[in-house]
Amino acid sequence: MLNNNLPKLIEEALNGNELAIARLLTKIEYMTDEGISALGALSKRSGNAHVIGITGIPGAGKSTLIGGLIQEYVSRGHRVGVIVIDPSSPYTMGSFMGNRLRFQDKTMLKNVFVRSIGSRGYLGGISAEALMLTEALDGLGYDKIIIETVGAGQTDTEVEQSVHTILVVTIPGAGDDIQALKAGIMEIGDIYVLNKTDRPDAELAFNTLKFAIDSSEISYRDGWKPLIVKAVAIKNEGISEIVNKIEDHLNYLKQKELFKKRIIDRRAKIVELIARRKIDEIISEIVKKNYNTIINEDITEAVPKVIHNVKELLR
Amino acid sequence: MLNNNLPKLIEEALNGNELAIARLLTKIEYMTDEGISALGALSKRSGNAHVIGITGIPGAGKSTLIGGLIQEYVSRGHRVGVIVIDPSSPYTMGSFMGNRLRFQDKTMLKNVFVRSIGSRGYLGGISAEALMLTEALDGLGYDKIIIETVGAGQTDTEVEQSVHTILVVTIPGAGDDIQALKAGIMEIGDIYVLNKTDRPDAELAFNTLKFAIDSSEISYRDGWKPLIVKAVAIKNEGISEIVNKIEDHLNYLKQKELFKKRIIDRRAKIVELIARRKIDEIISEIVKKNYNTIINEDITEAVPKVIHNVKELLR
Repeated sequence: MLNNNLPKLIEEALNGNELAIARLLTKIEYMTDEGISALGALSKRSGNAHVIGITGIPGAGKSTLIGGLIQEYVSRGHRVGVIVIDPSSPYTMGSFMGNRLRFQDKTMLKNVFVRSIGSRGYLGGISAEALMLTEALDGLGYDKIIIETVGAGQTDTEVEQSVHTILVVTIPGAGDDIQALKAGIMEIGDIYVLNKTDRPDAELAFNTLKFAIDSSEISYRDGWKPLIVKAVAIKNEGISEIVNKIEDHLNYLKQKELFKKRIIDRRAKIVELIARRKIDEIISEIVKKNYNTIINEDITEAVPKVIHNVKELLR
Repeated sequence: MLNNNLPKLIEEALNGNELAIARLLTKIEYMTDEGISALGALSKRSGNAHVIGITGIPGAGKSTLIGGLIQEYVSRGHRVGVIVIDPSSPYTMGSFMGNRLRFQDKTMLKNVFVRSIGSRGYLGGISAEALMLTEALDGLGYDKIIIETVGAGQTDTEVEQSVHTILVVTIPGAGDDIQALKAGIMEIGDIYVLNKTDRPDAELAFNTLKFAIDSSEISYRDGWKPLIVKAVAIKNEGISEIVNKIEDHLNYLKQKELFKKRIIDRRAKIVELIARRKIDEIISEIVKKNYNTIINEDITEAVPKVIHNVKELLR
């Protein structure tokens, strides 16, 4: 039985009760008053987690790769939180784990928490939810947080900016993918994982990517020259090396004093997003209430009136 | 030479000058003061366009289908505006037209305008842009406006709600697609286009879809029972029938007095989104200015302070 009392619920979540964590995260996601209050409490404990973003075209094997990373991190003594931003697929831990990991289920369950942001149309959007869940999981003691996004162009920049290390997953034959990278359309990666290198053309894909990075056709973040790692995630090949490279990048960030900075930026962004959401709700109400006036006015006249009403309603 | 004077620019756009239209839409998209003013002017002329949304899984042949629809509509005497919401692919008219339509290039150029929403990270998001561009194209005299979205789960509900007729494009063998429809994860369609029916399993796919609709496993909008049309868009088969069905749906909406209602709803939503954007900008500035205070505070304390500052700053 879960206690509905908020401090108790937070306590149970901190003790690792999965159901308590799930319920707490839902309150936070929906930005209820209790949720924001819980986030405030967890935020006091946060600031330690290394946040890893994973992106790439569909079919690149992101889920399998994440499964491997989770296993590797848990075996190295970490606790892993996973956030999946894919509104069309309700992921569970099973999606990442397949059947490979039954032997250590208990350790996994204790040290891994997977959350998918699966609903559309929340006010505030995906970035608000992802950042708040990251802050909460960090506060709950998950020290590696993996955020999976569905691919090029769909991630909010706000999420990207708060992620410490960005992995871009690509595969041999995905020429368009590398073109997109070069054109700056796709996310900038700190580490490029060339997955499925047991396929033909793996060397060609590696060299193309390497050339693009060496000749600075692909942008760098924070002065870090992106690394490329080859992998066959489904066979668990390359996973350990990827984790080593991720740790190298983490050390680089710490050395440049960017580790804490990104966490602090995230908090400022969360404050901004919650304030936005609260005011957006007020705007929606005003528009609903004055619907008949608004639709008969010129847009350029209606907007300042709505804004004036917001000012009146703000406390 | 384009005149930079706004009323002149609007006049030139209304005369069909493509460069003037493009420049005007950019101002509107970025919500500059001039852009909002231009939108106000165009909005006075809008209210006639039939807005058609097209969605479906990648690979279903949406672009080819849109090419066919454009051609059919132009041959029926319409002017067609196309808005593509796909940040990763900068579309041009060429993407839709292939090489098929050289013979009537001039008529096409005069009566078709394609705009892709290709940039990420604008404040206000994709829905604000799509709705404002729709309003503008409507005001510029495009009487059929096609909005293509990249597929399940990625469209903002706000865009969907303002679209008159939703086409969902699917193909034989896309079983998951129909599962997604049944589960309500995918958009609700007014018309389902079963494309590529020259493939095996076309009959099976048709019957599965038909059964799902007949047994109400797939939801209806506005009491309209969804239609299914078979097509082989690449061979131009079924296009004329699709357009006929779209017109049937349009007549249904008019009869139910939903045609104007949706346009009016769109305007109210645009007012809301512009107001939101203006206030969001103020919030961002406040957070930037008070960054050092905010990051040292509890989130629950920082939010009301930011909101209080917004009130002070609103005129």
